[in-house]
Amino acid sequence: MPAKYHNELEYKVRDYECDLQGVVNNSIYLNYLEHARHEFLLSLGLDFTELFYKGVVAVVARADLSYKHPLKSKDRFVVKTRVEQKGFKYIFYQDIYKLPDNKLSLKGVITTATLINGKLAISDEITEAIQTKL
Amino acid sequence: MPAKYHNELEYKVRDYECDLQGVVNNSIYLNYLEHARHEFLLSLGLDFTELFYKGVVAVVARADLSYKHPLKSKDRFVVKTRVEQKGFKYIFYQDIYKLPDNKLSLKGVITTATLINGKLAISDEITEAIQTKL
Amino acid sequence: MPAKYHNELEYKVRDYECDLQGVVNNSIYLNYLEHARHEFLLSLGLDFTELFYKGVVAVVARADLSYKHPLKSKDRFVVKTRVEQKGFKYIFYQDIYKLPDNKLSLKGVITTATLINGKLAISDEITEAIQTKL
Amino acid sequence: MPAKYHNELEYKVRDYECDLQGVVNNSIYLNYLEHARHEFLLSLGLDFTELFYKGVVAVVARADLSYKHPLKSKDRFVVKTRVEQKGFKYIFYQDIYKLPDNKLSLKGVITTATLINGKLAISDEITEAIQTKL
Repeated sequence: MPAKYHNELEYKVRDYECDLQGVVNNSIYLNYLEHARHEFLLSLGLDFTELFYKGVVAVVARADLSYKHPLKSKDRFVVKTRVEQKGFKYIFYQDIYKLPDNKLSLKGVITTATLINGKLAISDEITEAIQTKL
Repeated sequence: MPAKYHNELEYKVRDYECDLQGVVNNSIYLNYLEHARHEFLLSLGLDFTELFYKGVVAVVARADLSYKHPLKSKDRFVVKTRVEQKGFKYIFYQDIYKLPDNKLSLKGVITTATLINGKLAISDEITEAIQTKL
Repeated sequence: MPAKYHNELEYKVRDYECDLQGVVNNSIYLNYLEHARHEFLLSLGLDFTELFYKGVVAVVARADLSYKHPLKSKDRFVVKTRVEQKGFKYIFYQDIYKLPDNKLSLKGVITTATLINGKLAISDEITEAIQTKL
Repeated sequence: MPAKYHNELEYKVRDYECDLQGVVNNSIYLNYLEHARHEFLLSLGLDFTELFYKGVVAVVARADLSYKHPLKSKDRFVVKTRVEQKGFKYIFYQDIYKLPDNKLSLKGVITTATLINGKLAISDEITEAIQTKL
């Protein structure tokens, strides 16, 4: 259970993200979480895209999502992110709260790993940057 | 652990589903699983869209995804689905195998529930159709 | 050729919008334009979603897009929108400029029409709101 | 006006492609057209992805789409494609017909160009493959 968050990012639902039920499609939440992770890493000086082109490939190993309250057209919301390192893995606890009432919309745990030259490895660059937050 | 599957659906990766890493983006797997569930339900005579317009709203409560091997441009693959009912919930065990070698690509467990007139409820129509498979 | 714009909306490219070429996929620009139109209409007091549920269905009849300069990971950009009414049609001139240098990225012309109870019709509500800008 | 088509590819609408209006979102048609072009090229021995990694970058310069009849949940349809070469450009005429009645759903003209090492150029490999169809 995350004690506190390391990063927050605000969004607004765009209509094309809603499906025929009139709510944000369940797959889109993974887009929201990915963008929040990348922006968080960027705030630490880590550029997901540049890392990839250098051969440091961050991949998602697990995604565990608990959908609590659906987001709808025009809803504003915030993705709050906390990261922990466990061995080779970086675990991102990412929760979405609808604004302005901070109603919990989604609880997510995204487990990532890093491949360097195709092999599971610890990236010193990522670890050092993340340590500044832990 | 699913003993057997109730449904199989074949796909081919489309290039627009791949992200800048050259692999299928992690969110797209939820699209694949959703479509496989809806086609499975359709094979049982249950139409997700018609149910929705009748006020029977199937929603995803949890998604637990374990990414095993990434899919790439032009990969063919099969989504295999098994369903179980537990109280108010339908639990879909959905695994993706790359073809032609049947290499496991993703293991997913999608927990769904049904809202009727906005309230958590068991849909007799869905339950009866699914029972024919159990 | 639009003389001036009626609305501007800023965005930042999200990595999941980029395809294996490392640039924003050509389809995503239509998402950007749609969201900018809906936000523009909202600023005029017109809610696309509410209109739909009232039976006033705005549809895209044509999209003509000229891709000038690709957007990439992390690019900031602005969608500038101008609207004109021609008979039953609302024509949105929508141009995308990359920031901070205002380099033209895309020129779009989106022709929309309105169906009321399934028939092509002029919505007084939409026309009056848009007239305030013309 | 295309006299005949060089390629046909069948699809079925997936529910996640539909937006809150219950029809396929206007951006998704560009996905359908892209996939049909890539499959067409593949049938000629041209692999879009491999070409990209070799430095031959096919890009969309224009997309002109006329939406005739919306596709809905579960609709089957066919994308029919014809290509012409005009100087540096390959122009794909791509029309979508709903099945089984062959009702015209969309008329598209996608103008593409090829960048080799970042410069507009004619790819002999692409030209020779396409000539076999003209």
